[in-house]
Amino acid sequence: MGAVAPVYVGLLGVGTVGSGVAQALVAKQASIGELVGCPVVLKRALVQDTAKRRATALEANVLTTDAAMIMDDPAIAVVIELMGGEEPAYSLIKTALGQGKHVVTANKEVIAKHGPSLVMLGEEHGAALRFEASVGGGIPLIAPFRHSLLANDVSSVHAIINGTTNYILTKMSREQLELAAVLKEAQDLGYAEPDPSYDIEGDDAAFKLAILASLAFRTRVAPGQVFREGITNLSARDFRYAGELGYAIKLLATAKQRGGAVEARVHPTMISEDRILAKVDGVFNAVEVNGDLTGRVMFYGQGAGSLPTTSAVVADLIELARAVHLGLPSTPVFQPQRDLPVMPMDEIQTRYYVRMTVGDKPGVLAQIAQILGDCDISIASVIQKEADAAAQVAEIVLMTHLAQESAMQRALTGIARMSSVRDIGTVIRVED
Amino acid sequence: MGAVAPVYVGLLGVGTVGSGVAQALVAKQASIGELVGCPVVLKRALVQDTAKRRATALEANVLTTDAAMIMDDPAIAVVIELMGGEEPAYSLIKTALGQGKHVVTANKEVIAKHGPSLVMLGEEHGAALRFEASVGGGIPLIAPFRHSLLANDVSSVHAIINGTTNYILTKMSREQLELAAVLKEAQDLGYAEPDPSYDIEGDDAAFKLAILASLAFRTRVAPGQVFREGITNLSARDFRYAGELGYAIKLLATAKQRGGAVEARVHPTMISEDRILAKVDGVFNAVEVNGDLTGRVMFYGQGAGSLPTTSAVVADLIELARAVHLGLPSTPVFQPQRDLPVMPMDEIQTRYYVRMTVGDKPGVLAQIAQILGDCDISIASVIQKEADAAAQVAEIVLMTHLAQESAMQRALTGIARMSSVRDIGTVIRVED
Repeated sequence: MGAVAPVYVGLLGVGTVGSGVAQALVAKQASIGELVGCPVVLKRALVQDTAKRRATALEANVLTTDAAMIMDDPAIAVVIELMGGEEPAYSLIKTALGQGKHVVTANKEVIAKHGPSLVMLGEEHGAALRFEASVGGGIPLIAPFRHSLLANDVSSVHAIINGTTNYILTKMSREQLELAAVLKEAQDLGYAEPDPSYDIEGDDAAFKLAILASLAFRTRVAPGQVFREGITNLSARDFRYAGELGYAIKLLATAKQRGGAVEARVHPTMISEDRILAKVDGVFNAVEVNGDLTGRVMFYGQGAGSLPTTSAVVADLIELARAVHLGLPSTPVFQPQRDLPVMPMDEIQTRYYVRMTVGDKPGVLAQIAQILGDCDISIASVIQKEADAAAQVAEIVLMTHLAQESAMQRALTGIARMSSVRDIGTVIRVED
Repeated sequence: MGAVAPVYVGLLGVGTVGSGVAQALVAKQASIGELVGCPVVLKRALVQDTAKRRATALEANVLTTDAAMIMDDPAIAVVIELMGGEEPAYSLIKTALGQGKHVVTANKEVIAKHGPSLVMLGEEHGAALRFEASVGGGIPLIAPFRHSLLANDVSSVHAIINGTTNYILTKMSREQLELAAVLKEAQDLGYAEPDPSYDIEGDDAAFKLAILASLAFRTRVAPGQVFREGITNLSARDFRYAGELGYAIKLLATAKQRGGAVEARVHPTMISEDRILAKVDGVFNAVEVNGDLTGRVMFYGQGAGSLPTTSAVVADLIELARAVHLGLPSTPVFQPQRDLPVMPMDEIQTRYYVRMTVGDKPGVLAQIAQILGDCDISIASVIQKEADAAAQVAEIVLMTHLAQESAMQRALTGIARMSSVRDIGTVIRVED
């Protein structure tokens, strides 16, 4: 009897995650082989510079700078894309699927923008696309939507899916520090990029939310349809007031299904401290899904990093390699079955926290309440903070009842025009 | 063109969960059909009494008291077992698998005791066994081990998998109440059974842990091999002291892999309040898995109840029905690939919290420390509580460093023999 034919793999990109995956394929060779039913062998890895020193030593004949060495090799059945960014990753994934090769990717941008069309392209060529690693690193998130949660109508997804901002917010909250100081420290520790805007403006979370919302509601939410607002307006005092009110502040990615439409938004959000999601601190990620049968379930873990991402990539690889080995079609995924409209931000309804600095004289609060009332917004609670006598200003913190975003924006414009209002410090939406 | 042939289902047991499943199959008919690719139809349901009134109205010709109407019907491709208990459920599952019918079950006892042999029996007859609902209700737990976590070597599983006891412990902790009072209230609310021993002695959790440990370590852990100790020794003061030390007390199901052997134990456990697992309160369940790649990931949600369990059952059903419809083999599951020994409880190592009442006189603590030292156990911290002058007793609370269980038991025997020790109130193991 001859040896069992291996499943050959091509790797696109050998950076931090790519090295981790290459290393795992060697270190876990035996157990992966046992699970798949045959050896899984890394045949080629695309790099920009074959001479560059890498964390993982790959044999010289594995490295190539020519993508065609992978795309045109009929022996390579599965391609793993770990280059990141939209191009050339997107084009290479298209080519691979077009050649009938299964693709595993950790690329949130490509999946968020092109996931559905890539899945369709793959199906035309008998190739599957897997992307567990694109959201939440090693936390199983995509698989539950494909398997365990299938029987549910999902009403909402609330996710902390950017570790950098969660680290920053946790630190601001615990140590009563301002953003600039914490950001600097996070950069020194390598938790934040030199240019942090991709994380702190909510772009990274918006890509991931587009993927999660599409899966949760079996529809198509494009990243451009996700409202985003970053964390740069938050101040240490907001965390103090939030704490007094019984809330935590998180950069929450929220997707909801309501009345045949979908909401998708990333912004600083106050959530009750009683919720376990409020207790997800530091670089950890968590996704809470509310299904009609399950109620709230939450998935928690490290959302980034080489090893957790490797866990997700290799899990997808094992599943596809097994299908290749057994000659079976792979289970379908990510098929938007509906085409639900995405609700304009103006139409969403939520509660609001507003912190503002006003002139310390009688009647100001009454005037603010009047403007809110004219916009159909009722106040749930007000904390009037001690006045700064020297500056003749006082700080007002108020929480509203449920209100429509457009009404709130109208009210805020009106309030900002008041001569006695010095500054609208922060507006934070509240999720219950 | 003729209509697509449906997949026919037989249901064993129409109690609370069975009614929920039957109802979901009707209410979610369209979406289930879309996911499977053909209609999924409940053809027969086995009950003890066809005349009994049920939450879900089933047509008279669906109900039967004769199991053969399901087992001998070649049109029925999938059997759902929701009777609970070992027999007759076990025999009926065997019969169904022997007839080549796929089986979905929520039966933790049958799976814990007979899972591996049933899977093998099924494989001989081309039939699959699915049991997502057997642990953690609607929380996806089995599927992650079968898919997303496959690339990991799992070192530990820490689980809160009994909602009744977690409700009781949360209440004891928050309201400083004793067990008897809380248990009574839980029984009145329907959170605890009239005979609560199955929950509070750890039996329920032990069955579930046997299943989780077997999956996590790909070995065979039988329920009889799981050490169990219930919550009846805990007192409100233990929660107070634990809080002072920065710990929560949970009935934790712990499984570890260490040195080629497996630990599996259910007992009250102190865990640091910093861990998110410590914040899982009330009837909620959570399972934390520590993988070499993922690090700690946690799955959280409602571990029981009709709807969450229905979610898991229908998810398994959708997967199997899809395989039936497409004529594909279903993916294998629960194959112990190793045969790791289960470590005797004597050999486990952990830290310990000990609360005792001693005569309030000099030298007692020195004597206790001497006994511990003789058993190679060192003390990490001691809290000597105020003495009760009238009774001439004092309370000592101590935490040890890592120690072996057998040594600790030896030391406790020695301490209990001391004339100045009135009572060893509570011994709680500590997990880091």
